[in-house]
Amino acid sequence: MASSPPTPIAISLGDPAGIGPEVIAKCWDNRASFGLAPFVAIGDGRSIAAVWDGPIEVVDDPREVDSAFDVGLPLLQLAAAQADIPGHPSTAGAHCSLDSLELAVGLARSGSVSAVVTGPVAKEMLYDIGFSHPGQTEFVAERCGVATSNVAMMLAGPTLRTVPVTTHLSLAAVPVELNSALIESRGRAVLRGLQRSFGIAEPRLAIAGLNPHSGEGGALGREEIEIIEPAIAALAAEGWRVSGPHPADTMFHASARANYDAALCMYHDQALIPVKALHFEDAVNITLGLPIVRTAPDHGTAFDIAGQDRADPRPMAAAIRLAAQCATYRFDAA
Amino acid sequence: MASSPPTPIAISLGDPAGIGPEVIAKCWDNRASFGLAPFVAIGDGRSIAAVWDGPIEVVDDPREVDSAFDVGLPLLQLAAAQADIPGHPSTAGAHCSLDSLELAVGLARSGSVSAVVTGPVAKEMLYDIGFSHPGQTEFVAERCGVATSNVAMMLAGPTLRTVPVTTHLSLAAVPVELNSALIESRGRAVLRGLQRSFGIAEPRLAIAGLNPHSGEGGALGREEIEIIEPAIAALAAEGWRVSGPHPADTMFHASARANYDAALCMYHDQALIPVKALHFEDAVNITLGLPIVRTAPDHGTAFDIAGQDRADPRPMAAAIRLAAQCATYRFDAA
Repeated sequence: MASSPPTPIAISLGDPAGIGPEVIAKCWDNRASFGLAPFVAIGDGRSIAAVWDGPIEVVDDPREVDSAFDVGLPLLQLAAAQADIPGHPSTAGAHCSLDSLELAVGLARSGSVSAVVTGPVAKEMLYDIGFSHPGQTEFVAERCGVATSNVAMMLAGPTLRTVPVTTHLSLAAVPVELNSALIESRGRAVLRGLQRSFGIAEPRLAIAGLNPHSGEGGALGREEIEIIEPAIAALAAEGWRVSGPHPADTMFHASARANYDAALCMYHDQALIPVKALHFEDAVNITLGLPIVRTAPDHGTAFDIAGQDRADPRPMAAAIRLAAQCATYRFDAA
Repeated sequence: MASSPPTPIAISLGDPAGIGPEVIAKCWDNRASFGLAPFVAIGDGRSIAAVWDGPIEVVDDPREVDSAFDVGLPLLQLAAAQADIPGHPSTAGAHCSLDSLELAVGLARSGSVSAVVTGPVAKEMLYDIGFSHPGQTEFVAERCGVATSNVAMMLAGPTLRTVPVTTHLSLAAVPVELNSALIESRGRAVLRGLQRSFGIAEPRLAIAGLNPHSGEGGALGREEIEIIEPAIAALAAEGWRVSGPHPADTMFHASARANYDAALCMYHDQALIPVKALHFEDAVNITLGLPIVRTAPDHGTAFDIAGQDRADPRPMAAAIRLAAQCATYRFDAA
């Protein structure tokens, strides 16, 4: 049996006016039934107190979390934090969400926490204060010194894990931006991630085609022949267990899913449609290719329902559980 | 309660060397447990006898089917039919599959059968004998005198029905071919089809975006603003209950599906990935916008397993059941 890593999980609260504080507090409330290992929230305690009347245990050091966790929700309070009204984001709140992310990643890099779970942020607000990354994933990669082409954004549900090769592009730009080198680097990040963070010694990666019916031998597009098949051959030549290109519409049913550990998809919706159709409440975003474990619930700030006690904590709980599992696999392998 | 229409369902056997004859025979074997109304196979009895040793009841007229159905598998034997070896298609077999399709559609047009279910054909073999339609759907539309832009290919599962606006195109061609008029005509075909064939008086149609996150207000593509939103506005102005454009990755989970009767998708895999992920064994292809009911199982000839008693009859059974339901709704409304 795997033993647990010795340090808690750090959770950045995300935007203080979003649902992050609420779902994290609800996770602490339900820590036993959700099966959650000790975690510490990082951010401004006032954003939690505004939406929750449970006990908060302010800690100064992650080593205090294990004993504090039974008493209240452990919190690393940011010095220059700023309270927001739920549902009403501000630039001060954006600073708070960025500071908590920065601290969480720093603690993970130094080994003071075993993993990072990131709460939802408002990108538009971050851009207003000079944040220049497309999202938190790219920021975390940069802080870890890893090129974004070498990380992979996996959406992991109980019976399906998918990774998009291209991410936030218009559909028209996908065939333009797709190339063999990117498929190979994402594929390697996924395969190594399955080994390191999921404990799968010989991972199997199924690679999707781009076009309907995988291009039907070129009749419905030549990207399979010219771009995807060479990338698959290159990964296979390195000894990886890869298959494809598979027609995307017939690779996500139960018996097909039994043949692989993750599916590498060519574009955003090809990867996200099947996982969210099957596992909307418990799909977790995990960044592979980093020196640290980082997961996130797959939802946004939901400002429209913030402060109304309506946010569902299950996605955040799934993100915390997966972070703990991945940290344990890494700890055991170290 | 709806009463049954007075005539049987016609099933074209498809390619005699494919799995069509086998799955149709297995449907007759399991007609009680599958809940199947009387049907008649159209094609060459030798292609059935080659893979099945049950009783075949040759009939000359669809009116004989009701009484024959309890005795054996009713068959309308084609005069110029040609037996094939299972797994080995031929041009003679292609003629046979085309003749059976032609007869099935003609009987439905004349009211002698209540619906048509089409078995799987080998398109390449059909092209060799001069067939010039992309597939059976376009052939049936032409025989019914309906423009292909006014029909819609729906994939219907127990909890999700989707329709692609563009069909067999490379992914790169999708943004080029997509236009408001096509979205509107497909949308109308779906909405009218939900009324006529599914008995839904005020159908709700959810329309997907093309780009990730539905284009994020134009940042990830402008097709939503320039093409899709005007089409939605035009359909709404006609009084239809339409919504969207919806981000495709968050419209197919259970609580989202509860908000619509069908989803109109912009391209092949956007429509087919979610239905097949959720309903691989019982998703049915149904052509909307025709004067007749036509369904088909969503699988091909599977020459690689033909004649080995390995074919799963459940998709064909689902296609027969849906054809019977749709025929009943039309009969009741007539």
